[in-house]
Amino acid sequence: MKGEVKKVVLAYSGGLDTSIILRWLQDQYQCEVVTFTADLGQGEELEPARKKAQLMGIKDENIFIDDLREEFVRDFVFPMFRANALYEGVYLLGTSIARPLISKRQIEIANQVGADAVSHGATGKGNDQVRFELGYYALKPDIKVIAPWRLWDLTSRTKLLDFAEKHQIPIAKDKRGEAPYSTDANLLHISYEGKALEDPWTEPDEDMFTRSVSPEKAPDKPTYVEIQFEKGDAVAVDGVRLSPAQLLTKLNELGGANGIGRLDLVENRFVGMKSRGVYETPGGSVLIVAHRAIESLTLDRGESHLKDDIMPRYAELIYNGFWFSPERIALQQMIDHISQNVCGVVRLKLYKGNVTVVGRKSEKSLYRMDYVTFEEDSVYDQRDAQGFIKLNALRMRLAKMARG
Amino acid sequence: MKGEVKKVVLAYSGGLDTSIILRWLQDQYQCEVVTFTADLGQGEELEPARKKAQLMGIKDENIFIDDLREEFVRDFVFPMFRANALYEGVYLLGTSIARPLISKRQIEIANQVGADAVSHGATGKGNDQVRFELGYYALKPDIKVIAPWRLWDLTSRTKLLDFAEKHQIPIAKDKRGEAPYSTDANLLHISYEGKALEDPWTEPDEDMFTRSVSPEKAPDKPTYVEIQFEKGDAVAVDGVRLSPAQLLTKLNELGGANGIGRLDLVENRFVGMKSRGVYETPGGSVLIVAHRAIESLTLDRGESHLKDDIMPRYAELIYNGFWFSPERIALQQMIDHISQNVCGVVRLKLYKGNVTVVGRKSEKSLYRMDYVTFEEDSVYDQRDAQGFIKLNALRMRLAKMARG
Amino acid sequence: MKGEVKKVVLAYSGGLDTSIILRWLQDQYQCEVVTFTADLGQGEELEPARKKAQLMGIKDENIFIDDLREEFVRDFVFPMFRANALYEGVYLLGTSIARPLISKRQIEIANQVGADAVSHGATGKGNDQVRFELGYYALKPDIKVIAPWRLWDLTSRTKLLDFAEKHQIPIAKDKRGEAPYSTDANLLHISYEGKALEDPWTEPDEDMFTRSVSPEKAPDKPTYVEIQFEKGDAVAVDGVRLSPAQLLTKLNELGGANGIGRLDLVENRFVGMKSRGVYETPGGSVLIVAHRAIESLTLDRGESHLKDDIMPRYAELIYNGFWFSPERIALQQMIDHISQNVCGVVRLKLYKGNVTVVGRKSEKSLYRMDYVTFEEDSVYDQRDAQGFIKLNALRMRLAKMARG
Amino acid sequence: MKGEVKKVVLAYSGGLDTSIILRWLQDQYQCEVVTFTADLGQGEELEPARKKAQLMGIKDENIFIDDLREEFVRDFVFPMFRANALYEGVYLLGTSIARPLISKRQIEIANQVGADAVSHGATGKGNDQVRFELGYYALKPDIKVIAPWRLWDLTSRTKLLDFAEKHQIPIAKDKRGEAPYSTDANLLHISYEGKALEDPWTEPDEDMFTRSVSPEKAPDKPTYVEIQFEKGDAVAVDGVRLSPAQLLTKLNELGGANGIGRLDLVENRFVGMKSRGVYETPGGSVLIVAHRAIESLTLDRGESHLKDDIMPRYAELIYNGFWFSPERIALQQMIDHISQNVCGVVRLKLYKGNVTVVGRKSEKSLYRMDYVTFEEDSVYDQRDAQGFIKLNALRMRLAKMARG
Repeated sequence: MKGEVKKVVLAYSGGLDTSIILRWLQDQYQCEVVTFTADLGQGEELEPARKKAQLMGIKDENIFIDDLREEFVRDFVFPMFRANALYEGVYLLGTSIARPLISKRQIEIANQVGADAVSHGATGKGNDQVRFELGYYALKPDIKVIAPWRLWDLTSRTKLLDFAEKHQIPIAKDKRGEAPYSTDANLLHISYEGKALEDPWTEPDEDMFTRSVSPEKAPDKPTYVEIQFEKGDAVAVDGVRLSPAQLLTKLNELGGANGIGRLDLVENRFVGMKSRGVYETPGGSVLIVAHRAIESLTLDRGESHLKDDIMPRYAELIYNGFWFSPERIALQQMIDHISQNVCGVVRLKLYKGNVTVVGRKSEKSLYRMDYVTFEEDSVYDQRDAQGFIKLNALRMRLAKMARG
Repeated sequence: MKGEVKKVVLAYSGGLDTSIILRWLQDQYQCEVVTFTADLGQGEELEPARKKAQLMGIKDENIFIDDLREEFVRDFVFPMFRANALYEGVYLLGTSIARPLISKRQIEIANQVGADAVSHGATGKGNDQVRFELGYYALKPDIKVIAPWRLWDLTSRTKLLDFAEKHQIPIAKDKRGEAPYSTDANLLHISYEGKALEDPWTEPDEDMFTRSVSPEKAPDKPTYVEIQFEKGDAVAVDGVRLSPAQLLTKLNELGGANGIGRLDLVENRFVGMKSRGVYETPGGSVLIVAHRAIESLTLDRGESHLKDDIMPRYAELIYNGFWFSPERIALQQMIDHISQNVCGVVRLKLYKGNVTVVGRKSEKSLYRMDYVTFEEDSVYDQRDAQGFIKLNALRMRLAKMARG
Repeated sequence: MKGEVKKVVLAYSGGLDTSIILRWLQDQYQCEVVTFTADLGQGEELEPARKKAQLMGIKDENIFIDDLREEFVRDFVFPMFRANALYEGVYLLGTSIARPLISKRQIEIANQVGADAVSHGATGKGNDQVRFELGYYALKPDIKVIAPWRLWDLTSRTKLLDFAEKHQIPIAKDKRGEAPYSTDANLLHISYEGKALEDPWTEPDEDMFTRSVSPEKAPDKPTYVEIQFEKGDAVAVDGVRLSPAQLLTKLNELGGANGIGRLDLVENRFVGMKSRGVYETPGGSVLIVAHRAIESLTLDRGESHLKDDIMPRYAELIYNGFWFSPERIALQQMIDHISQNVCGVVRLKLYKGNVTVVGRKSEKSLYRMDYVTFEEDSVYDQRDAQGFIKLNALRMRLAKMARG
Repeated sequence: MKGEVKKVVLAYSGGLDTSIILRWLQDQYQCEVVTFTADLGQGEELEPARKKAQLMGIKDENIFIDDLREEFVRDFVFPMFRANALYEGVYLLGTSIARPLISKRQIEIANQVGADAVSHGATGKGNDQVRFELGYYALKPDIKVIAPWRLWDLTSRTKLLDFAEKHQIPIAKDKRGEAPYSTDANLLHISYEGKALEDPWTEPDEDMFTRSVSPEKAPDKPTYVEIQFEKGDAVAVDGVRLSPAQLLTKLNELGGANGIGRLDLVENRFVGMKSRGVYETPGGSVLIVAHRAIESLTLDRGESHLKDDIMPRYAELIYNGFWFSPERIALQQMIDHISQNVCGVVRLKLYKGNVTVVGRKSEKSLYRMDYVTFEEDSVYDQRDAQGFIKLNALRMRLAKMARG
């Protein structure tokens, strides 16, 4: 494969797998490797990644380490929550929504450093490869994409470790044995899948979870919290204005402490198979309830039902990796337009896994405006209901008469 | 209005309001009144209704008292749950789904006794008048419909009580004062709305609830339960086969005891205004989680996403009163067809308001069939993913190239 | 009804019916009447309406006569054509799209002159009453609406003529007898319905049509025409830049001369009954074919299919009178966003009723960019198709295996 | 590749390309080849295919020649027309709908003769490969699929001819030069694409067309025709009952003679690129107009709009090759259910490319039942319209008041 690639931008976590990929790219393509490591709120130190990259011979100017947490929440998580997006009725899309940002930043770096290729560490059976690569292609159509897991012959744990040892890649002690499941983490969620979770009849171990206490261990007293919204986005918690990433961090604390946001499901992957996943999304699980509640007060029925009708399609686009597709962007225009009037405060009770709406108010509320502005009769005359019903019934009466 | 109506079938609860309607109908139309009282699982004795009807001069052959619980769950609740129907993302449609059955039975009785009119006690501002009357018209296009609340001048509590006293209609002590909210109950749910709940910023009193303990008061130990499904319907709980109504009753006990199924929302009525409602749906809240879980294992992605896409429309049809519309029936054909393969067992953990799926299995599972039947490679070759991604990306690459 | 209304803005055509309404309003409400007469391209002189209004005592400052043709095409017809809107698969919505503009202008005038009411001449069985009044209410929620046809007792032709004679309203000779059908005309179309057309088995008389020759009488030689588009709108014909109304006028001439744009259908009214209508839409029928053709070249598949999927809903909103609804406006945001890239030229052959696309080109074409920019292989490798197909097939294979 | 395949069923037309494939399969796999040749109404003799197969060494019991015309129209074309399916607003899916039948029959034969593989002659850039192979996999998940055009090195016309000569495959004189476009034909349509048509600005030559005269050359007198429907399907033409294939043949004659059914479009392929196609679908173009017309009379609005809303999705499924997918089958259940009441007669005028509905009648008509069965007032009271409008307007009034 020599000569095909000159410079490649690798999404590099600093962990064992992407370190192996780094070396493998150097070997296979004899090319310059640029590492890109992002803080998306996964809760890991990034500086060790710099050191490891340096150790593997990456030049300083080719090491990119970015804190993308604000961009992540502001430009990806929040727009998605404006849509109340749930994949297959329940999944908050925590992994799906982070991938396009990584793709976007990799392509930005590729353009900056003049790279002709990008690479990632996602395997060949999952959705993430699709999400990364659709992002790459949508943003830079002539980019070369290297997906080592689909190309190499390091198809077993043993072979990987052998390769690492042979190339003096340090192996952390706890990476010797195979992990009981694979995880992905960012500020919105952490996921677990594979191995110990493969039998969908088996309940996950309590000690797997890292972002939330169990409902059983959560406090016996409820926590009340007020979330303020502007133009469809949360902007303050309990009266304190917060940046997007700060706000989600705060909701993660509140949700996690109260046992909120665990989800165990079997989902349909875009690549055609079902998989079982377990997720912790404490802040997101609080946020979606609050967002629906403020919409219930401030959206017109026509707007609200239109959003509900297209939501599954919008969520599917994100799940499948089409964040940068023209149709996702077009749907977003509509959603954002509708969100202009979504403002106010929602009061929630958080208690042992439950998120309960106990109050909502808005200066743009569409609830009971009648009593405020009009004489009751001028807005709603009960006799109007008869005509409303009779004309709505007419076609069904005619059908019954004709068909018996 | 004399002479217009010969015989009217009244949906009669035996309570004060419908007793006043009964007398008012006799007065206004000088017509024969047939009372129909149904047990839909609302948890009230029906025989007192017979006695009251007799006292008001209704002939024995004109008093109909029916236990419709099995029909209600089998032919209305279960078909709706096959669709995972949620109105506005959250509401399980407990009131909406009961109305068409009442309409249907009233029309059956009207046909049996040769009545030319039907009447109900729903007010002129709500959805229920629409649901009742669309049902009547769809099933018997030439029926006359009498909606006293839209017609009479008994527009205040005082006038109603005066009318009752004047006509010797007994008034229960607790009906003297105005109720703090109006309720509707059946085997699926109980609703509360109006008065004390009108301010959407105010949390409901804990002592309002009747079907569930609060999460706080629920047991400190979780309850595990297994629900078995066949053709999309729950058929057994913990291995015990139950009839539809028995099964929902059992889930109500389990859910209610564990603080499950309370919902507080602002919803958009079909008649054009928003209203605030609080609901308890303990068994239904357990059932929908279980149903989604068994579908996640047994439905093909295409089937599942099709169902998700049309669900909001299906739910809206039920909410708006179009149960007997040709299009609801057509959608049901599709949903029922898809449900043929939905079978297996779901294991749930119920704990202080939480319903968590902890296992699911099915002999028709579509999960991981690959490892069972095929050599791994013959079903999924990781290299296939490259072509899959590249062709999915193609149109986006072309768009980017043309548009920049 | 005296005293209820102070000043009313009447949509006044100058014809017999609205002249009767004018007098009836004066009689019934003893109120000031403001007449509003619009040129929407219906092809009638407007000045006679001024004279008639004056004769009936309307003050000069209360007579509004506006040429709205450009606004009509620019702000109503063109946005609708961006959506390729067809009601029930075939109808170009010529009447529906004009009503909201009339409503809007009436409300503007009401605000200007301080009127508290508006009135129109649409009957109680049709869609137009709904369209007018939903427009009024959406733009000025506290407006009073007077719909004389639903209120008065002039329920026969004879009574109307008697009323006219009694009040010295001049009756044109050809209005003495009843018209064979009712019509509505504007720059987009003319409609015919009622009376002679009521039997849907009967073909309309050839001499009914006024905007187009029959295909039989159209020229034996085809006409070729080129239409240029920018941002989804037609801007030039055969290289000549035209304003929106000029352009539609030009297409009407071309279409009408070539026997294009007649449609005979049975449609479902919003008020619940079916009706039979015949329409002539010569320019619009040319325009929609051209618009679809330019979109076929310039829209991404995802955009195009999204538009197709929501089109029936968008068309239904317009047909039902919800032009000013929040959801129509939200959908328009999406459609207009997508239309940004719709530009280029379409070449059409017009011949005896046929509109055939014979060429389309665009600088933003997404067609065959591969050969232009890329080496063939780098965009499309035929071997990619195998992976694409296999992963698309995977779920169906698993379903077949599990279900047999 | 030797030894991989034992017996392969080839979709064999008898033409040069599939004869080369036949020999190539024998060479490459040293396997037994079974040929399958179908009459789908493409208008070619089938017996020459038998002879050619024999000459290439195929055993008589391995030669399958089937007349599938009735099955094609009855089980594929007619169900699709019940949905009024149009891809991208205009295309009648003539090629797409034939592929699944070929797949189905190949798999039936594979099961019968114990073959482990199937093969087809579709290229690697088109939709047909997808349609064939999705069909194979959906019906027989473990089948091996051989797509020679994606595998071999016969990548130019010259190489193909060389291969043919080397293997004594007879080459018809007119196959020496390259065809000006590729075509696909069956009883529903014929398609043209590629080469001379590749520039979407160029009008096709008149002498390309084979199934229809041009509108210019069609008769100067219109043809009137009556089509009778039962349960959504056409069953008789001008009172003569015909089998499905006979009926479509008859409509092809009538349509073709009157210059009906030509279409020139740029479409979005499933594999991600745009292509330009020209189609002749004379009978189908008549049929869809007639079908919509009979539905306009007999379908309830709710049914009809539901069908319209899902149509683009249904059409896309067929275009993309998902005929045998669970979701297409589920949608068909709904469509077929709705079609139960679609019956009656439609009268059409065919004239120089135009198909005009001039009459429709049905014993199950929902049009104007009011006058037949009811007193006018009992079905439609014009005053009902006021309540209908006011409640439909309510939410928009509230929105305007709150938002200004």
